[in-house]
Amino acid sequence: MKRIALLGATGSIGLQTVDVIRNHSDEFELYAMAFGRNLEKASPIIKEFRPKLVVVQDENTLQQVKSEFPELQVRLSLEGMYEAATHDQVDVVVNAVMGSVGLSATLGAIEAKKQVAIANKETLVTAGHLVMDAAHRNQVSLLPIDSEHSAIYMCLNGEREKDANKIILTASGGSFRDKTRAELEGVNVEDALNHPNWSMGAKITIDSATMMNKGLEVIEAHWLFDMPYDNIDVIMHKESVIHSMVEFVDKSVMAQLGTPDMRVPIQYALTYPKRLELPDTKTLNLVEIGKLHFQEMDMERFPCLRMAYEAGRQGGTMTTVLNAANEQAVDLFLKGEISFLTIETLIEKALEQHSIVHQPNLETILAVDEETRKRVISYVK
Amino acid sequence: MKRIALLGATGSIGLQTVDVIRNHSDEFELYAMAFGRNLEKASPIIKEFRPKLVVVQDENTLQQVKSEFPELQVRLSLEGMYEAATHDQVDVVVNAVMGSVGLSATLGAIEAKKQVAIANKETLVTAGHLVMDAAHRNQVSLLPIDSEHSAIYMCLNGEREKDANKIILTASGGSFRDKTRAELEGVNVEDALNHPNWSMGAKITIDSATMMNKGLEVIEAHWLFDMPYDNIDVIMHKESVIHSMVEFVDKSVMAQLGTPDMRVPIQYALTYPKRLELPDTKTLNLVEIGKLHFQEMDMERFPCLRMAYEAGRQGGTMTTVLNAANEQAVDLFLKGEISFLTIETLIEKALEQHSIVHQPNLETILAVDEETRKRVISYVK
Repeated sequence: MKRIALLGATGSIGLQTVDVIRNHSDEFELYAMAFGRNLEKASPIIKEFRPKLVVVQDENTLQQVKSEFPELQVRLSLEGMYEAATHDQVDVVVNAVMGSVGLSATLGAIEAKKQVAIANKETLVTAGHLVMDAAHRNQVSLLPIDSEHSAIYMCLNGEREKDANKIILTASGGSFRDKTRAELEGVNVEDALNHPNWSMGAKITIDSATMMNKGLEVIEAHWLFDMPYDNIDVIMHKESVIHSMVEFVDKSVMAQLGTPDMRVPIQYALTYPKRLELPDTKTLNLVEIGKLHFQEMDMERFPCLRMAYEAGRQGGTMTTVLNAANEQAVDLFLKGEISFLTIETLIEKALEQHSIVHQPNLETILAVDEETRKRVISYVK
Repeated sequence: MKRIALLGATGSIGLQTVDVIRNHSDEFELYAMAFGRNLEKASPIIKEFRPKLVVVQDENTLQQVKSEFPELQVRLSLEGMYEAATHDQVDVVVNAVMGSVGLSATLGAIEAKKQVAIANKETLVTAGHLVMDAAHRNQVSLLPIDSEHSAIYMCLNGEREKDANKIILTASGGSFRDKTRAELEGVNVEDALNHPNWSMGAKITIDSATMMNKGLEVIEAHWLFDMPYDNIDVIMHKESVIHSMVEFVDKSVMAQLGTPDMRVPIQYALTYPKRLELPDTKTLNLVEIGKLHFQEMDMERFPCLRMAYEAGRQGGTMTTVLNAANEQAVDLFLKGEISFLTIETLIEKALEQHSIVHQPNLETILAVDEETRKRVISYVK
C-alpha cells in the first residue's frame, strides 16, 4: 500500500489522481491532501478518503474545514504543503499544484527521499538545477505527470540514458493551431480555453494556445532527462496520438501512444515500474483514426516556444523569469485585462529587462519570481 | 568481445550482420559462419574476418573452400551448423538461414545456453513449443531479428510481461498492396519481388506479397511473447515507419519506429540491452514523411493471413504444415511452375488434408515437414 500526499487535489490533475486512487484502493491510500479554497470539490474527497492531513490556502478555508471535519488535522499554506510532502507516513508525493508555489514542497519531498510525481512543470522550469541536484543527491526518482514526459519516461524505460540521442516532443498546436498571427489579434478568453484534444485547467490551456506549454515542456525535458536543448525537437502532431518520442544512438525511435487521458500518466507515475489496469479509458484505435499528421514547428508563428528555447539555453534565472512572466501574463489575460498577443509581448519584455543570475539559489529564484510578476503588472497598469 | 556464430552468412540478413560486426569490431568477432554454396559472397567475408570455423552445404563447396583457405576448419551441412551453434567458444548464435533447416542448430544453441538471435522465423513457426520450452528451461533469451519482433522486444523492454495486453503488428502490404484479388491473377515473379519498402531475400518478399509473412510473424509473436492469438492484431500501415506496437493494461501503447534498415534489429539483437551507434543509417524524419496511414487488414483479400491465424489457433503440427507448404509453394512459384494465387490454394489444400498431431516432438515435426513438401509437389506434378 502506497500512502500518497496529493498537493493540488481539486485541480484537474488532482481530481484525476483521486480517481486513480479510487480505482486502486488496494494499492493506494490518500494520506494527505492540499487544496486552495475550493471546499465544494474538496469536501467529498475528504469524506470519501478520510485523509489524515489536509492543507488549505487560507485561514478562512481552514476554519470551514475544521468545522465540517472536527477530527481532521488541518494545516495552512506553504508550511502545510511542506509538512504533507515530508510527512514520515507518506511514500509518494504528487505535486499537482499550479505555478511555482509547488517548489518548496517538492524540494522538501526530495530531501525526505519520497517518490515524487510531478505535474507541476513550473517547479522544474524555474529551479531545474536545484531540483535535479537534490534528486541525484538523494537518489530519488522524479516521475513526470504530463503526457509528453511520461511518454519519454516510458520510452527510456529499460534503456541506458546515454543511448538516448534526441527527445522529440509532439505538440497538438492548441486552440489556435489553424489561425495565422493576424487572426490571433481578436481572440478572446473563451476561444483560447477551447482546446481541440485535451480537457485541462485554464492556465495550461492558454499555455497550449501560446505554445508556451511546449516551451515549458522543452525546459522540463532538458532537466528531467539531462538532454541538451539542441537534442530536443518539437514537432506539430495535431492528433496528439503519439505523446512523445525518443531517438536512440542506433536511430531507433521509441514512442508512446494513447487516447488523451491524463489518468494514464498519473497512474504510471504512481505504479512505475509496474502498470495497473485502467479499465474505463478508451483503447487507442489507429485504424479508426486512419492518419497521423506531422509538421514542422514554426518559431515565428509561436514566439513563446522560441523564447523558451532561448531562456533555457541562457539558463540561470532566465527560465524563472520566463515562467513567472508567463504566469502573470496569463493571469492578466484570463482576467480580461490584456489581449492574447500581449501575453508574449509582456514575457519578451520581462526577459529583455532581466539581468541573468547564474546558478541561483532558492532565495534568489523566489525573489526573481516575485519581482518579475510585479514588473509584468507594472507594464500594463 | 562477443564471439558470433553466423548461420546463413551470405543471405540478406547474413550480409547485414557482417556489416554490423564490421562496424563494431571492438565488440564482436565473427567466430564461425555457415553458408550454402555462394562462395563468391562467402570468400571475401572469410578473407576479412578469418573465422575459426566455416560450414557449407555440400562436399563440392567444402573442397573449394579448403583449397582457397587450407588452414580453415570446414564442416558440412546440418551437423556442421550444429557444431558452430554449440561451439564452446561461441557466445551468440545468429540464425539467419532460410526455412526450417535452422531448427536443430537453434535447439542446440539453446541447450548450450548461447544467446540466440533469430532471423529464421520458420524455426518458431514450425516448432515454437519445443524452442520456447528449451529457452525457458535453459533461461536463454531469444532475440528476434525481424523489424516487427525486434520492435515488440523493445516495447516490452523494462516492462513486466503480464502488463502487456496486446501486440499490434504492422503490415506494409507487400508488393501487391493496391491490387484486387482479380488483379492478382496475372502477376509474375518479377512483380512479386518488387517490395515497396524493404529490400529483402526472394522468399520473404513473396511471403510479404501473399501476406503469409505477416501470418508467420503472428505465430512467431505468439511464441516469443507468450501472447494468445486473440491478443495479436495486424493492421495495414503502408509506410512501414511504425515497426510494431504493444498495448499495455493501462491502454498505453508503446511503438518502435524507424527507417527501413534491417541492421537496426540485427545490431539490437547483438547488443541488447545496450544500444550502439549505427552511424550510416538514415534518421527518421516524421515531418518529411508528413503522414502515417493505418487501415484494417482484410482477411478475404489476404487468405494466407487467415490461414496462419487458423493454423496457429489449432496448434500442434498445423503450423508445421502451414510453413512447409508455404516454403514449397513459394519455391514452385519462384521457379515459374505455378501462378501467384496457386500458392495459397496449395497451402489451403495441405492444411485441409493434414491430420493434426498435438505436442509433436522434433522427429514428428521433421517428418511432417518433409511429407508436406512432397504432398505439395504432388498436387501440381
